[in-house]
Amino acid sequence: MADNKTVRFGLLGCIRFASKFVRTVTQSSNSVIVAISDPSLETAKTFAAANDLSPENVAVYGSYEELLNDANVDAVYLTMPVTQRGKWAVMTAEMKKHVLIEKPPALDATELDKIVEACERNGVQFMDGTIWLHHQRTVKIKETLFDSGLLGDVRHMYTTMTTPVPEQVLERLTKEAMGLAGAIGELGWYPIGAALWAMSYQMPISVRAMPSSVSTNSVGTILSCSASLQFGSTTTAIVHCSFLSQLSTDLAISGSKGSVQMNDYVIPYKEDTAWFEYTSGAKFVDMHTGWNVMPERVTFDCGGTEESQEAMMLREFTRLVEGIKRGDLEADHRWPEISRKTQLVVDALKKSVDIGCEVVHL
Amino acid sequence: MADNKTVRFGLLGCIRFASKFVRTVTQSSNSVIVAISDPSLETAKTFAAANDLSPENVAVYGSYEELLNDANVDAVYLTMPVTQRGKWAVMTAEMKKHVLIEKPPALDATELDKIVEACERNGVQFMDGTIWLHHQRTVKIKETLFDSGLLGDVRHMYTTMTTPVPEQVLERLTKEAMGLAGAIGELGWYPIGAALWAMSYQMPISVRAMPSSVSTNSVGTILSCSASLQFGSTTTAIVHCSFLSQLSTDLAISGSKGSVQMNDYVIPYKEDTAWFEYTSGAKFVDMHTGWNVMPERVTFDCGGTEESQEAMMLREFTRLVEGIKRGDLEADHRWPEISRKTQLVVDALKKSVDIGCEVVHL
Repeated sequence: MADNKTVRFGLLGCIRFASKFVRTVTQSSNSVIVAISDPSLETAKTFAAANDLSPENVAVYGSYEELLNDANVDAVYLTMPVTQRGKWAVMTAEMKKHVLIEKPPALDATELDKIVEACERNGVQFMDGTIWLHHQRTVKIKETLFDSGLLGDVRHMYTTMTTPVPEQVLERLTKEAMGLAGAIGELGWYPIGAALWAMSYQMPISVRAMPSSVSTNSVGTILSCSASLQFGSTTTAIVHCSFLSQLSTDLAISGSKGSVQMNDYVIPYKEDTAWFEYTSGAKFVDMHTGWNVMPERVTFDCGGTEESQEAMMLREFTRLVEGIKRGDLEADHRWPEISRKTQLVVDALKKSVDIGCEVVHL
Repeated sequence: MADNKTVRFGLLGCIRFASKFVRTVTQSSNSVIVAISDPSLETAKTFAAANDLSPENVAVYGSYEELLNDANVDAVYLTMPVTQRGKWAVMTAEMKKHVLIEKPPALDATELDKIVEACERNGVQFMDGTIWLHHQRTVKIKETLFDSGLLGDVRHMYTTMTTPVPEQVLERLTKEAMGLAGAIGELGWYPIGAALWAMSYQMPISVRAMPSSVSTNSVGTILSCSASLQFGSTTTAIVHCSFLSQLSTDLAISGSKGSVQMNDYVIPYKEDTAWFEYTSGAKFVDMHTGWNVMPERVTFDCGGTEESQEAMMLREFTRLVEGIKRGDLEADHRWPEISRKTQLVVDALKKSVDIGCEVVHL
């Protein structure tokens, strides 16, 4: 375990959802959980037991500070509420530990810049936990449809992340829990990131919330929002995020030559398989009785948990951390850059809502 | 053929596309083409030859007036450019012939009202040629997903009709050819109609074009437009129509309990089969490694041309015409009402574009 091929993880925050990360690390060949922490020691202990983390191998702390002082920890996975992420991510970097942080990584781009600056200054890798970007399906679409020109220029996108929250919980979504960006940060992060991804991270020139789409709870947290993102003069993305709708994770991209479609881009329906469908050169046949092409389905065998998107993200993060530890690599600026661009659009959309759904130029 | 079970059709306009209608009528058991007409007799003759319409059975006229004066014609299918439809549809009704008219049926709701009024006064059926409403898939979705409550209340819709027009043709899309509503009338008719259909023809309270989405050619014809339609306080539809994008006909409907998806709602990929996919009660499974449900695919065997959506539309139209001829039925107000609501939203969207993409209340 002391081998420099092994990345030794600590957790800041023991939310139930962190079990997925523990499972992925445990199944990996090059990383290990060495410490966990939570402001409630009780919560940390319960988490350790529930996840078969033996006290012999894993230190259990009742405070984040203790974990950050543990020299055995190389890299930290941060899952605390977004309102505390900025502070602790900076602290993590200052302790020269690599930062893998849940999304959204910060309350706004100003706070994110502080995190990224701290990571750069301390020579540690920064990556947010937008898992779907690491799925082999995502990588393959980029290569085979975008880079090849098969889709042509992107003209129109529609992308959502909606997931219902029980009515009695909606009022508990406070500024303290999630920042006032609310659904835009927590959910909108995905469709905004998907539109940026499809545009190869070209930034939109403007963002505008649709007035009728915005809902807030009584304390002003945004629960639902649709928006248009304008890229150059010919490309528009519609993004939709909501705590008020049924689960949906749609991504439809229309290009000048073809289109691609997924309804499970954030988390594939099944862990061990995934697909996307595309058409290229589609036309109605003569007399308009059908189409000249059918959607092509491309399916991926994700070989169980080894090739899951979580495993792929971990592999990329630990590849970088190992390289940096060996002195072969510098921190990769691509990942913080993706986070930063996503956050800038989240901020712009939040601002559009704040100023009465007027256009915000970027 | 003189049997009152037989509906005797005449065509006003011999565009190539009318061949589909001729084929459908020819294959039907209760209707027949008895006359065709075009302002160019040459065009009408060529059409007759190309579609095996024998001069013994089918009168070929070089003017619409002659056809409307042919007492052998019960019902007329109108395919001339939209700018002439209003005038000829009224004339058709005044000659007490039933009106089956391509969409959009008129340049605006005022003109459409004149057509519908003429049809009502003359006791003839009015129906526009929005074929997809007649597909058994469309009917089944309504029954099994909406009426049953399986989808819950509709919360969000995304629907498109985009089809590319070659660049050199775009400038020929003039006011004279298609009215200034352009793509909104010709293409937007579909996504607007789809949103209304999903809402059981509840009208939106407001419509707003997205400024960045609107393109026009040098003579002011609208080539591309996205818009939001607001239904009550919780339901939004995004509609997108364009002559500048690859073919797309997407319809995604998210309800409070489930969602349904088609990418070929206007014309199914294949004439003899069609499907839709839906999920109900979808959630991420524990630890967010997948979904608790997979999309259910419901497939229809459309039994060749007998059950195609064109055949289904013809069957509904001729059922009504036969009933009216027998004196058993009155003209069905549902079809003109659907056309009128669609046209009102088309008009509102056109108005929104005209006033700088401000909100238009309905």
